[in-house]
Amino acid sequence: MERIYKGKTKDVFVTEDGTIRLFFKDDMTGKDGVFDPGENQVGLIVDGSGRSGLAASKYFFEILEREGIPTHYLESNLEAKTMDVKKAVMFGKGLEVICRFKAYGSFVRRYGEYVQTGEDLNGYVEMTIKDDERQDPIINEDALVLLGILKEGEYDFIKEKTQQIANRIRKELASKDLELYDIKLEFGRLENSNDIILIDELSGGNMRIFKGEESIHPLDLETYLLA
Amino acid sequence: MERIYKGKTKDVFVTEDGTIRLFFKDDMTGKDGVFDPGENQVGLIVDGSGRSGLAASKYFFEILEREGIPTHYLESNLEAKTMDVKKAVMFGKGLEVICRFKAYGSFVRRYGEYVQTGEDLNGYVEMTIKDDERQDPIINEDALVLLGILKEGEYDFIKEKTQQIANRIRKELASKDLELYDIKLEFGRLENSNDIILIDELSGGNMRIFKGEESIHPLDLETYLLA
Repeated sequence: MERIYKGKTKDVFVTEDGTIRLFFKDDMTGKDGVFDPGENQVGLIVDGSGRSGLAASKYFFEILEREGIPTHYLESNLEAKTMDVKKAVMFGKGLEVICRFKAYGSFVRRYGEYVQTGEDLNGYVEMTIKDDERQDPIINEDALVLLGILKEGEYDFIKEKTQQIANRIRKELASKDLELYDIKLEFGRLENSNDIILIDELSGGNMRIFKGEESIHPLDLETYLLA
Repeated sequence: MERIYKGKTKDVFVTEDGTIRLFFKDDMTGKDGVFDPGENQVGLIVDGSGRSGLAASKYFFEILEREGIPTHYLESNLEAKTMDVKKAVMFGKGLEVICRFKAYGSFVRRYGEYVQTGEDLNGYVEMTIKDDERQDPIINEDALVLLGILKEGEYDFIKEKTQQIANRIRKELASKDLELYDIKLEFGRLENSNDIILIDELSGGNMRIFKGEESIHPLDLETYLLA
């Protein structure tokens, strides 16, 4: 089994038979030892965080698969902390799609002149390109097309898929008395195809979740889901 | 005559008969004494810069008026360094619209992973909200509508007007052997109307202009235009 990519929270391997296998590490993004899903650096190592992120991902990917939403998910192995996925090609060097239900974090840092933390954002979608050095800059539809990251029409398709997926996850969390404030998704193009599918993971590390006034730590999400 | 607004490079007065009069100051945006149209602070004071900015603005506004493009321009007085304009209401606390023909400055700082300085951008348009404290963050169409800064449909209208105006100015500069790399425009809503018109100024301070490999200082633009 060969490692083909070393990520911040996951490594990517290819098995002898060509399957793509994600290995969930015990590294979390954050700063100065405090978890922050918006951070681009590994800020802390937490025993069990890899397994926990995988458990949440498995939970949500299986819901989406049942609903016929195309994703890269094949199967997962909680003991080995691995998830097998279909091979997909990233958009450019990685495109992140954020769906926001409540104003929080970077949205308020950017637009704080017009919005306060906690205001309803109704599933607003924005995209950022992955670029640690430049702090994942926000990018509009025209720039994505101009720079060859998306093709004409794909922005709206991804936006719609994002809202569909985010609303499904939000509904699921609501059934556990949890509120989804925002979620960060990643899409890719299925290999040898034009199909756009959901890739990456679906864990607490990609979501901002509250229970009442209290923020849920990503590692605790699993216990709520499987309760 | 009462001053109703004190800006970085212009003050706004209202005359006894209710006319809005812009006074062009000798302050320029920049940092550490070096002019930079992308900077948000007054970085230097240059004798004659107010008059020079007004002369260029008068030149371009009169061209646009002749072509029937709606602007706030009424008339100007070079000696007094004033321009009389129609009263217009800003979008939110100010919306800036940038049209780019060549990659430069903040576009490359943001998307340098995908583009190099000087590459063709074909009149790409992006919008930023005026917010000195937050360095004029870029904002997409959905956020502008969500935050109540633009109404549905206005983004595309403004984008199209921007490209029309930028292309006209670019053509004019080309006739003087100058190349427009990018330009920053501002629009507003004509008072008591839904009409969207071009406001602010049209000077070297809002444009990045080259002659061959050499950048043109904003204060020198006037001499090229009136040569």
